Formats: sequence, C-alpha cells, structure tokens
Amino acid sequence: MLEVVLGGTGGTMPLKNRWLCCCWLRQEGSTMLIDCGEGTQIALKCAGISFQGIDILCITHYHADHISGLVGLLLSMGNEGRTRPLTVIGPRGLERTVTNLRVIAPELPFALELHELDGDTETFPFGDAVLTAFPVRHTLPCCGYSVTLPRVGKFDVERAKAAGIPQKLWGILQKQESVTAEDGTVYHQSQVLGAPRKGLKVTYCTDTRPVPAIAKYADSADLFICEGMYGEPEKLGKAVETAHMLFSEAAELAELANVKELWLTHYSPSLPDPQEFLANATEIFPNTKCGKDGMRTVLRFSEP
Amino acid sequence: MLEVVLGGTGGTMPLKNRWLCCCWLRQEGSTMLIDCGEGTQIALKCAGISFQGIDILCITHYHADHISGLVGLLLSMGNEGRTRPLTVIGPRGLERTVTNLRVIAPELPFALELHELDGDTETFPFGDAVLTAFPVRHTLPCCGYSVTLPRVGKFDVERAKAAGIPQKLWGILQKQESVTAEDGTVYHQSQVLGAPRKGLKVTYCTDTRPVPAIAKYADSADLFICEGMYGEPEKLGKAVETAHMLFSEAAELAELANVKELWLTHYSPSLPDPQEFLANATEIFPNTKCGKDGMRTVLRFSEP
Repeated sequence: MLEVVLGGTGGTMPLKNRWLCCCWLRQEGSTMLIDCGEGTQIALKCAGISFQGIDILCITHYHADHISGLVGLLLSMGNEGRTRPLTVIGPRGLERTVTNLRVIAPELPFALELHELDGDTETFPFGDAVLTAFPVRHTLPCCGYSVTLPRVGKFDVERAKAAGIPQKLWGILQKQESVTAEDGTVYHQSQVLGAPRKGLKVTYCTDTRPVPAIAKYADSADLFICEGMYGEPEKLGKAVETAHMLFSEAAELAELANVKELWLTHYSPSLPDPQEFLANATEIFPNTKCGKDGMRTVLRFSEP
Repeated sequence: MLEVVLGGTGGTMPLKNRWLCCCWLRQEGSTMLIDCGEGTQIALKCAGISFQGIDILCITHYHADHISGLVGLLLSMGNEGRTRPLTVIGPRGLERTVTNLRVIAPELPFALELHELDGDTETFPFGDAVLTAFPVRHTLPCCGYSVTLPRVGKFDVERAKAAGIPQKLWGILQKQESVTAEDGTVYHQSQVLGAPRKGLKVTYCTDTRPVPAIAKYADSADLFICEGMYGEPEKLGKAVETAHMLFSEAAELAELANVKELWLTHYSPSLPDPQEFLANATEIFPNTKCGKDGMRTVLRFSEP
C-alpha cells in the first residue's frame, strides 16, 4: 500500500488559495516529503499530515519555490520535539544550499543527514519500497523521484508440500529469502513462491522539460505526478525558455510511459483554473486529473 | 494620516489560522513593512496589500519566524516587475543573513539597499514621517521601530497680516521653512505658525523583554503594538528564559509610556485564543486589544 498526498500544487509563488507544490508519501511506517517551498509546513497541517513522521525529505532542486520553507519546517520539527535524524536528499549543491539557509536556524535538536546526488540515478530504501532519484532537465540541476514497491510471487502450497517444508515455516518464507529449519535444512523462497506479482509505483517530476528519461523512469507507474506549468498551447515558447512543460507535454510523457493515471501539478500563478485546460491533456492521455491542494489517494496491489 | 495593518500576529511558527507577525504602515505615498516570516507574502495578499509599493523593509531580528519569508517576498516582487531598489533595515548581521538566504535567489531584477544598524538608535525619513530604529533586549540583536509624523503649528492669519506677508505666500509657508517674496524679502514659518501641534506616532516592538527603553521610545504613542508571547501569568519564567513578554508586561509598558492604545501580537502557538487572557492586560492598561491577522486602523490628527 502506498499513500500519496499533494500538499500543494503551485509553482513560482504561493497564492492565497494555492500552496507551493509538494508531495507526501507513506509506505507502511515510512514517510517522505518531496519539496518544501514557503508555506509547506502549513500546507501539511491543512492536509492533516504530521511532519514529525517524515523520514526522508527529497528536494527536486534549489529554486526558492521548492526549498524556501525548509528552515521553517526544520524548526517546527524541532519545536515539536524531534530528536531523530532527518535524511535530506537533493541534487548537487545540497550541502551549500542547506548550510546557507541555516544562517537563521544554526541550531536544531536533531541531525540532518544530507545525501547530495551526483547527477546519476541513485536508489535508497524507503520502507519496503525503493526510492529512485533520477536527473531531469531544468535550468539548474534537478531530480525526479520514483517510489517502487515490489511484490513477491504468490505462495504455492502444493510446491511447499512437495518440497516437504514444515508448515510453520511457510509464513516466514513469504517474507524472507530463506529460513533454516530445526534440523538444519535451509529452505528458499524460490521453492515456494511464484513469479513476482505487479507491485506499485509512483513517479513525481517537476520542474523539467519533457525529456525521454522521464518516460523511462515513470514506466508503467500506477500514478505519475508531473508538472504542468502551462495549460495553453501558445505558451510552448515560454515553457521551452523556462524549462517547464505544457499540460499536453506531460500527457505525452504519461502516454509514452504507459502509466495508469496522471496528476498535473506546479501550475503557473497565471493559471487560476487549471481545469479549463485539462482537455489539452486528456485528448492525449485520457486518465489525467488536475492535481489540487490536499488531493490524495491510496494505491493498493491490484492482483489477488 | 498613518495607516497600520497587522499582516499576521503569530510567533515561532505559522499556523493554519495565524500568519507570522508582521506590520505594514503607510504614510501618504510611502509604505513600509516590518518583518517577513514564512508566508508573509500570502498574509499581505490576504489583507489586500500590494507588496509592490513597499519602500522600506524593516527586520526586527534574524530568528526565522521574522525573516524566513524574505526570499519569497523578494522573488515575488521581482516576478511582478519591480525594478526600483528596496531599502532593507535591520540589526547587526543584516548583510550576512541576507547574503546567505539569497543562495536560492542570487538574481533579482532590483537592488537591495541594506542598512545595517550598529546597535544605537537611528532615524530614517519615511514620507513626511521619521522612522526610528531602537535596540531592545532579546536573545540576539533585535530592534523596535517607531514611526513619528510631526505636525506644524496652526497658521496665524493675524500674525501673517501684521508681518505684512503677501497672502499668496501663506500656503507655501504652511509647508516649508521659508519663502522669498518677489521683492527679495525672506519670510519664515516662525512668523506665522503657532506651536507645533500633536502629530502621530506608532511604535512596534517584538521580540523582547520589557526594558525601560521601550517605554521611552513608545512615549505618548497613538498606537503601541507590542509582543504578548504568553497570556498566562505562570509563564513568566518561560518569558524571561526566552526573552519574551507576558500580556501584563506589555500592558505595564503601555501604561508607563502613556500611549493611547495597545495592540498585542506575536502570540505563542500554545495560545490558540489570546482573548482568553486579555483581562491580564486590560486590568493594567484598559485600552488594550488583542491584535488579529488583518487588523487595521487609520490614525488621523486629533487637533483641528
């Protein structure tokens, strides 16, 4: 199971009725947040999310609308009693950016474990899932993030019986690679599990031009959350110039990546009603929705 | 005339229903803002205030709740087309703090004119008024700010006639120190004006212990806006430890300074309803009000 909440959906600047874009994900007991612009700590409260639980904070890049709320969030975590370390992942420049911003928060009651990406794809454990950071193309180093939750194959009772595996070990073998019986025999998952079943995947991507790598990393995602800075086709020139996307370009990526569902986010302040231009995406990728502040979903395994 | 708007009234962290404290003032065509924590740019929009008009930004001190919204505000000013310089005034450390915070906003389409206070009282022109910055006592260098609008004496027609001042020069002498007539005679205001009349004064003060200097600088203010971090008398120890004030301490300062009206602000997040403790202030200084986000007033000369 993967829970996903869009804390905000705005780009450039926070508005009276639209928080800056950020995304909160939970996989069982593990929680992560992508981006924290000005006001994200309030956006999380509005969405009923405790930021105390956050294990990993991922930053896409160091434009202010994606990180200007960092210090406020860290201080509020501290004020509410956090002492356990927080992992912060971001592209090149993380150390320098965080150090500079902390001029107004030099002391925190918990440690920051900074993990600066070097421009290549990297993976990290996130609960039972895998968090993948991959480079995209913006006006400065920028990353997209995917969370992939694998699922092992179905337990085959007949094979387990045939292999003579004691029934009390079956439950253990569903969860771990191997187990040693009392008599010293080692049994393996491969003896009892079928082929891996379809897992779950969420891919989040902003701010970037629609480069093919995105479709590769979003391949077959259950949910693809992608920037749609502009809805209007005539803003293509502006999108190219500022290294952003049109709704239609996000939809083309969704189609190419063969995802199940696309949510648009990171709207320009010049776009008060994204819904007005949704058709520009749905005519290319029908299962597109305009992301809204507080929008949420729970993804569950589809196979029995 | 002096317009005053409380953009927010919170301390420590922004809440769902309370912006971080800031204060906007206008004197004729000149506008200033005191403090800009996380979300202040949204708070201003909520209060119907254009931040484009701001001429002077005063920072009380460099705790995050008073300056974490600086970069967002500057970028939004830039996005909305500002090219004229912005004066920024703050205590020691201004240059270093602003430079560090601008790691995520290295380029702006307008200049910042930083004026770092050296710990003494300093004055600046603000429209027809005078802006005074004065040191207070917090856990790091911190300033209070007063805006004083003087008012010249009443024009004395009989004295003007007796002095033989041509009537067409009367209007000029009401506004400027002296005027030269066509025949070369120089006339002075002192020949036609009575004693200066009562002007207007607003004093703003947070975060600080209630040191006597505050009463001195707030002397006879029409409006004294002062921090009231805690309403409960039993939080005195905490107020002393964190260098803040109780409601009652702010009221004592108001009483001592002989101000007309006191507004409390900068409430602790632990204080959801400041009104509950208002009596702790009004029993000392009756004309106390609990500041609220968006609260505003227009101060006008009282004498004819």
